[in-house]
Amino acid sequence: MTGRGIDFYFDFGSPYGYLAAEQIEAVAVRAGAEVVWRPILLGAIFKTTGGAPLTDSPLKGEYALRDFRRSAAFYGVPYRQPSRFPIGTVLAARAILWARTHAAARYKALALAFYRAYFRDDRDLSQSEVVADVLRREGLDADAVLAACAEEALKAELKAEVDQAIARGVFGSPTFIVDGAEPFWGADRLPMLEAWLARGGWSY
Amino acid sequence: MTGRGIDFYFDFGSPYGYLAAEQIEAVAVRAGAEVVWRPILLGAIFKTTGGAPLTDSPLKGEYALRDFRRSAAFYGVPYRQPSRFPIGTVLAARAILWARTHAAARYKALALAFYRAYFRDDRDLSQSEVVADVLRREGLDADAVLAACAEEALKAELKAEVDQAIARGVFGSPTFIVDGAEPFWGADRLPMLEAWLARGGWSY
Repeated sequence: MTGRGIDFYFDFGSPYGYLAAEQIEAVAVRAGAEVVWRPILLGAIFKTTGGAPLTDSPLKGEYALRDFRRSAAFYGVPYRQPSRFPIGTVLAARAILWARTHAAARYKALALAFYRAYFRDDRDLSQSEVVADVLRREGLDADAVLAACAEEALKAELKAEVDQAIARGVFGSPTFIVDGAEPFWGADRLPMLEAWLARGGWSY
Repeated sequence: MTGRGIDFYFDFGSPYGYLAAEQIEAVAVRAGAEVVWRPILLGAIFKTTGGAPLTDSPLKGEYALRDFRRSAAFYGVPYRQPSRFPIGTVLAARAILWARTHAAARYKALALAFYRAYFRDDRDLSQSEVVADVLRREGLDADAVLAACAEEALKAELKAEVDQAIARGVFGSPTFIVDGAEPFWGADRLPMLEAWLARGGWSY
């Protein structure tokens, strides 16, 4: 461990977020860095930034659907374009914040399980039954977690996470912030992020 | 030569187009592919697609200005953010179409010289004096080329190039279309494009 840190911001509805989630821990291990996974809600961020889902744009949307699948194959990650897309991911995001505090050793595995339910198995992650089922398969008390997700504390914690992301300049998913200072946006920036960690950055 | 082909669409005002222009021929040589350089006008394309210059977006714009410089340093390409940005690049685009037909052996060097004037030397490429000076330094008859650029034939040729780009799904710069079928958008897709050429593609 060198004590380096990566904040990994992602939305569970983001294909490139999923592709990054499948790779970031391997990158971090090679660099001796620690990753904090931070679920956000792109919908809330787009209200501030004026952004829009990729697939809403003419031409770019068609290309994006192709690039999701092609990139997944390039990285060796299984991918199926979800039948319902995009979806609201607030419940899964809150569940991860709960797990980060109360089941810290399992919260990254849980996040990957949510992502895989949506982007491998085409399960509608906006539905509480799906979230509950994934929680159970990961060995957590689904009823207790969902009850916590309905409480003010967890709602406020997610809102604070999103507000902090915006304050740090996050406008898309995935975004990585290295050592609290250097932002990288996109799964396609992982090679550059890895070079940045290996070289200790470079002036530009 | 394997007879493979890459159509390289770019706007002279595009930083990532410049970064791609400095790399694409090396990628093509390694793959035994031939590149056709196709200048386009993003402004005209954005009218169809509703796109906007990257640097116009809040948060994303700030990130982009940082990523231009950082990516250039990562690729080992000199870069200076132009004082005037973005600019109209219609004259340089027409001059390249002229050179592609009338000075084919030199048109790629001329395109690189235009890009370097703008992104290395901070010369305002929207100005005809700058275009003329670059033409002269590249050994071309600047007066004759600029006169041709004012004629209907070259205007129509550039319009046709832009219309064809839109018809082929091009919405940003740089875009590469491999073997007339496989589109790659962004300088950051060059590693994937190179893998695509090396493996003869993959199913997805």
